[in-house]
Amino acid sequence: MTASGQPGSVGVVETSTVRLFNEDAPLVLASGETLAPVDVAYETYGVLDAEASNAVFICHALTGDAHAAGYHADATRPGWWDNLIGPGKPLDTDRFFVICANLIGGCQGSTGPSSTNPETGQAYGLDFPLLEVSDLVTVHRALVAHLGITRLLAVVGGSLGGMQALQWALSHPDDLANAVVVASSSRLTAQNIAFSAVARRAIMADRQFRNGQYAAEGTLPAVGLSIARMMAHITYLSEDAFTEKFGRAPQFETSRRGFGIDFAVESYLDHQGTTFLERFDALSYLYLTRVMDYFDPFADPHALDRIRERPVRHLVLSFDTDWRFSTDHSLRIVRRLERAGVPVSFRELTSAYGHDSFLLASPTYHATLTAYFDHALEVGP
Amino acid sequence: MTASGQPGSVGVVETSTVRLFNEDAPLVLASGETLAPVDVAYETYGVLDAEASNAVFICHALTGDAHAAGYHADATRPGWWDNLIGPGKPLDTDRFFVICANLIGGCQGSTGPSSTNPETGQAYGLDFPLLEVSDLVTVHRALVAHLGITRLLAVVGGSLGGMQALQWALSHPDDLANAVVVASSSRLTAQNIAFSAVARRAIMADRQFRNGQYAAEGTLPAVGLSIARMMAHITYLSEDAFTEKFGRAPQFETSRRGFGIDFAVESYLDHQGTTFLERFDALSYLYLTRVMDYFDPFADPHALDRIRERPVRHLVLSFDTDWRFSTDHSLRIVRRLERAGVPVSFRELTSAYGHDSFLLASPTYHATLTAYFDHALEVGP
Repeated sequence: MTASGQPGSVGVVETSTVRLFNEDAPLVLASGETLAPVDVAYETYGVLDAEASNAVFICHALTGDAHAAGYHADATRPGWWDNLIGPGKPLDTDRFFVICANLIGGCQGSTGPSSTNPETGQAYGLDFPLLEVSDLVTVHRALVAHLGITRLLAVVGGSLGGMQALQWALSHPDDLANAVVVASSSRLTAQNIAFSAVARRAIMADRQFRNGQYAAEGTLPAVGLSIARMMAHITYLSEDAFTEKFGRAPQFETSRRGFGIDFAVESYLDHQGTTFLERFDALSYLYLTRVMDYFDPFADPHALDRIRERPVRHLVLSFDTDWRFSTDHSLRIVRRLERAGVPVSFRELTSAYGHDSFLLASPTYHATLTAYFDHALEVGP
Repeated sequence: MTASGQPGSVGVVETSTVRLFNEDAPLVLASGETLAPVDVAYETYGVLDAEASNAVFICHALTGDAHAAGYHADATRPGWWDNLIGPGKPLDTDRFFVICANLIGGCQGSTGPSSTNPETGQAYGLDFPLLEVSDLVTVHRALVAHLGITRLLAVVGGSLGGMQALQWALSHPDDLANAVVVASSSRLTAQNIAFSAVARRAIMADRQFRNGQYAAEGTLPAVGLSIARMMAHITYLSEDAFTEKFGRAPQFETSRRGFGIDFAVESYLDHQGTTFLERFDALSYLYLTRVMDYFDPFADPHALDRIRERPVRHLVLSFDTDWRFSTDHSLRIVRRLERAGVPVSFRELTSAYGHDSFLLASPTYHATLTAYFDHALEVGP
């Protein structure tokens, strides 16, 4: 809490990078393939207490990164979950030690398909190995060990982040006391896969994609990547949110009708598509969407064996207007966990904003998280 | 009805073409611009009775054409609404005379942006004028006059076709006794526009689009057009229909995971995108989606003046799983018409298949149409 009593910012932060796997001790993936070196970019907020008992790990969603809170020295925009993390906020950094790491396969400092392949000296491109959610968890665990933490108070994530929290709890229940799974899914639907398939097609069919070697060839599949983002962004908002934000408002007072930007909603999408190019990599988009397509932990009949022995408390939240991962997705997770005797608290929250609600600071949502985290801290890891 | 008593086919049909406007008498568009020549491709099924009192005009949707029923001599697939039109079917061609015309702006025989501009000898490209739904109706009316019909028993359409039926009834209520508006809208939402905006972007950003001059340059924006189709197709089916048809089934029994076609739903979308290239034109896609974006007849405070004086009976139908034009869209039309004293029969029908349900032959849907058309014929035009 700041001196004024208002929730505050964690202030200026920097991203650190650590090499967690190298040629001598490579990352062994779920597929059996190995990857080295593996660097991970991460940030931390708050102070780890003497017993290392107040650590919360944040897992980011498809296009997130390690910069979850505070400000980079040269930036005006805070981290992507700054409304959640900071003094006096639900993850109160006066009490919690919060960690966020860029995913492997990503493009903001952690090793990904556009990193240099040591065997060729060029970007991996499509030679980068396919990943699974469990691989993302393997790397997170290595970072947590590097930070000297043996047990996390909680793992928290929305969307793809929630998948990581769920997988972590299922595979390594000794690692964490709580998993917070927001607006997520244990299994994409055909429609979910369809949207990502079209996005990938747009990227790969872009002539500038050059079979994934665009970095070496000095090109950029900008058209495909921006189309992918524009389309995906439609699925992140509810129809009502689009109506409320834009309706049928024209973009310009006097416009000659045409095929450019006539409506305000077109300008918004155009902006989404364009700014995305500055911060995201086309290959990462392919790899991380495919990670989501294949995620299906409960297909393994032994998925719940470990957590049954060592329950991890779960908070599962959905939003009533989320049509990307509707409440049905969350309820499937809840049913599976409850059948295994895992303690689960579930809420469907009201929000006008669809899937993106998990990133927003609606009062009921944040009050729910605050209550859960306060109790988690009281109980301890 | 066929000899066997089972609903039958109208048999082999041919598409006719007629020049309805020429340089001496050009088509005057709502915008004030003129267009000439204007050719229209159309088909008819059944026989016009002596009083010309049994004519029903079918308006096609975005990617339809004049071939609504029966078989072309060299084809194995029937017309797109063959389940509705034929002996013993809801539009029983033993009793009704049914007309369907390719839209101007389209690409299956009627004048459109890929037709030759007489001023240049090249395809119009983006020099083709922007159209409104009322322009489509103007051309339909000229065809009806050409066929010697002064008053239609009904105008029928789904989606963009329903918009034409509604506009026709509002603008020229003397022309028709009944308007059947299925799975349609009087006003697209921001989300509706957003999907079309991304589709147009995919087409126009394709380097083969060549600012609309692809025909002259011998290229084809195939990538953009197939992306547009794949994405749009997702919005035509309900999420449940995708789940029922494909679920998470793999496409191949043994597949190496990758970024190609791993899931059955990906194969389906790929097929949709590829086959679309054979039958549709990228410029038509731009023009006709923009027609839909701008459709908003009730924005005109005088929209209902004419129909109030000369009511046209309406049947408005929606499908409960249609998330492209949900029941709310239909109810807005119903409320507007009822407020003007126009007789409206409305039903929300149950269907698992989303927006595309209007093309399918579910029993309740077809029973509803049969009852409505039978009564319409009894009352007369």
